[in-house]
Amino acid sequence: MSASLSSLDTPVALLDVSRMQHNIQRMQQRMNELGVRLRPHVKTSKCLPVIQAQIAAGASGVTVSTLKEAEHCFAEGINDVFYAVAIAPGKLEQALRLRRKGCRLSILTDSVAAARAIVVFGQAHDERFDVWIEIDCDGHRSGLTVDDPSLIEVARTLVDGGMQLRGVMTHAGSSYDLDTPAALQALAEQERRLCVSAAERIRQAGLPCADVSIGSTPTALSAQSLHGVTEVRAGVYVFFDLVMHNIGVCRADELALSVLTTVIGHQQDKGWIIVDAGWMAMSRDRGTQRQREDFGYGQVCSETGEWIDGARVTGANQEHGIITLAAGSEADISERFPIGSRLRILPNHACATGAQFPDYHACDSEGAIHTWSRLHGW
Amino acid sequence: MSASLSSLDTPVALLDVSRMQHNIQRMQQRMNELGVRLRPHVKTSKCLPVIQAQIAAGASGVTVSTLKEAEHCFAEGINDVFYAVAIAPGKLEQALRLRRKGCRLSILTDSVAAARAIVVFGQAHDERFDVWIEIDCDGHRSGLTVDDPSLIEVARTLVDGGMQLRGVMTHAGSSYDLDTPAALQALAEQERRLCVSAAERIRQAGLPCADVSIGSTPTALSAQSLHGVTEVRAGVYVFFDLVMHNIGVCRADELALSVLTTVIGHQQDKGWIIVDAGWMAMSRDRGTQRQREDFGYGQVCSETGEWIDGARVTGANQEHGIITLAAGSEADISERFPIGSRLRILPNHACATGAQFPDYHACDSEGAIHTWSRLHGW
Repeated sequence: MSASLSSLDTPVALLDVSRMQHNIQRMQQRMNELGVRLRPHVKTSKCLPVIQAQIAAGASGVTVSTLKEAEHCFAEGINDVFYAVAIAPGKLEQALRLRRKGCRLSILTDSVAAARAIVVFGQAHDERFDVWIEIDCDGHRSGLTVDDPSLIEVARTLVDGGMQLRGVMTHAGSSYDLDTPAALQALAEQERRLCVSAAERIRQAGLPCADVSIGSTPTALSAQSLHGVTEVRAGVYVFFDLVMHNIGVCRADELALSVLTTVIGHQQDKGWIIVDAGWMAMSRDRGTQRQREDFGYGQVCSETGEWIDGARVTGANQEHGIITLAAGSEADISERFPIGSRLRILPNHACATGAQFPDYHACDSEGAIHTWSRLHGW
Repeated sequence: MSASLSSLDTPVALLDVSRMQHNIQRMQQRMNELGVRLRPHVKTSKCLPVIQAQIAAGASGVTVSTLKEAEHCFAEGINDVFYAVAIAPGKLEQALRLRRKGCRLSILTDSVAAARAIVVFGQAHDERFDVWIEIDCDGHRSGLTVDDPSLIEVARTLVDGGMQLRGVMTHAGSSYDLDTPAALQALAEQERRLCVSAAERIRQAGLPCADVSIGSTPTALSAQSLHGVTEVRAGVYVFFDLVMHNIGVCRADELALSVLTTVIGHQQDKGWIIVDAGWMAMSRDRGTQRQREDFGYGQVCSETGEWIDGARVTGANQEHGIITLAAGSEADISERFPIGSRLRILPNHACATGAQFPDYHACDSEGAIHTWSRLHGW
């Protein structure tokens, strides 16, 4: 289905396909140079045409955040799927069904208790699950540290229980708190070193650990060497966003996702422009709040995408966004931004904003708009 | 479709139907006592069985935040629908289609420019739209103040242009910043007084202004008199949430919406319990951040709903929630909250958390679970 920008009702999630393709090429080329496979995290887009573009550019399999994403990808012919959230025992039944259909689904654990649950379930159903062990490389969330006494116990539990121990994985999520190349390079090296060390500990214990999977968009784009790493997972690079821009790993003209909105009112005395993109459209994500530059609920651009310096969504109700301008530029707002005129808003966090929409409106290089549906829920 | 709690995969949005029915009765009874109609705002639930329960209890029509909600309600036999966001001229075509099908759709404006656009479009299509004028009673968002010189001009533009001026409406959204009965009662009276005054100004100018519509859940439940008001709009009362609990207008046992989640890991050293409800399930809404009590991304309860004092979701990634406990109670977390065990999380903001899910799992008084779908997108 094809439409034009002016025919769209607002708010809609606009995708700039040329920018997206550029971002996909950029990450794939960097991974090729570093000699590792790229396994994109599709939690950002949850959208098949986007995923297909990543595969076409050279990606090896996909990473998913839910089993629904896994089912969707497998139904579309993607066989190598890594569910990169430590699995709840109650989800093993669903994982089994996927594997029985022929999907090479990988699952994840970071505890002896969960490893035992996988083994018990796998043995009961005569299934040799592909399992990865999660490593904690920066203390931000889950995983076992490289020196955790239970690391070898988890590995041994899986191997002795007849499971396929694929390797170790980590995610340097603390990279979102950094914003200098030196700090990002240091964290990328820490992520690599600790995950490779964990693999070596397991191998030294006489257990198999073929793969080492690391990744986050900021560290993936900052790593100088990925020696010992076999694959990188990264997600948000496909669209980029204001958080990534503040971190310093993308330019403003690489942001591929925006929300098209219509001006519905003004509060002239306060210099407010009211638009029909509130938090239901932008999401409540305030990821830039504690970063180098706080963009409120988003950076305002013209309808055709030109950044309007200092114009931000500084307040949001469910279906109302409040835009304020740079100090001193509030005069004549109802003439400059009349009711019915349109703006684009760049989001803080592409994963969160995308999730507010049932589909993207993908704008190709000829200006045609295609409706690309995305997954919602679990 | 009926299921049991234990059969549900997580995360899911659980609705306690008994609590919801209690909340609906509570608000309807209070409005009956105050002698006004209740027009519930369905943006909170976006769910037909919930709306039907509100209508069955005595509601007069509905308020919607999108025309998609309006279409959905009208398709299910609800005729009197108020789209309570100042209309973008580009949406008049969709509004017209709804009215031509027989829906008595009301639309809203707060400017001469938009009023003219409504008149031009209405005259071109020979349609006498039902239009309300938005009044600003507390400076928090949109609307004309009661003394704004253009108030009468907007009213006259509509009436002279042949539109049906239904009345004035306001929303005291600043009530979310209050947390004492005295302050809430004062704001409720301000909301009433200013909106009634605006109606009187219009009437004194010789123009019709039959209706006066006000509302927000906190002010609706705090108002001592609604003299001059004809209807109240309120939304979140149907489920309530932690924001409303902090404001002081509901008890903990009136919160009807929660997210059922499963424990997937621990970081014993830090006292962290990792669950499979991250921000994708809870939303990024941090509405309690600057309130009396900051609940992080939600208050943790047992699987059966008992509040666990001091247990909160203090961190969230897309599919990971990090629960921390009250200081001093972090011992033996992996025994007390083992992997695979379940918890319920009460959300900050029911409108935002509900929107993350394609449906609610509504638990009736017999413990049976029904799947109630909800709208997503525009």
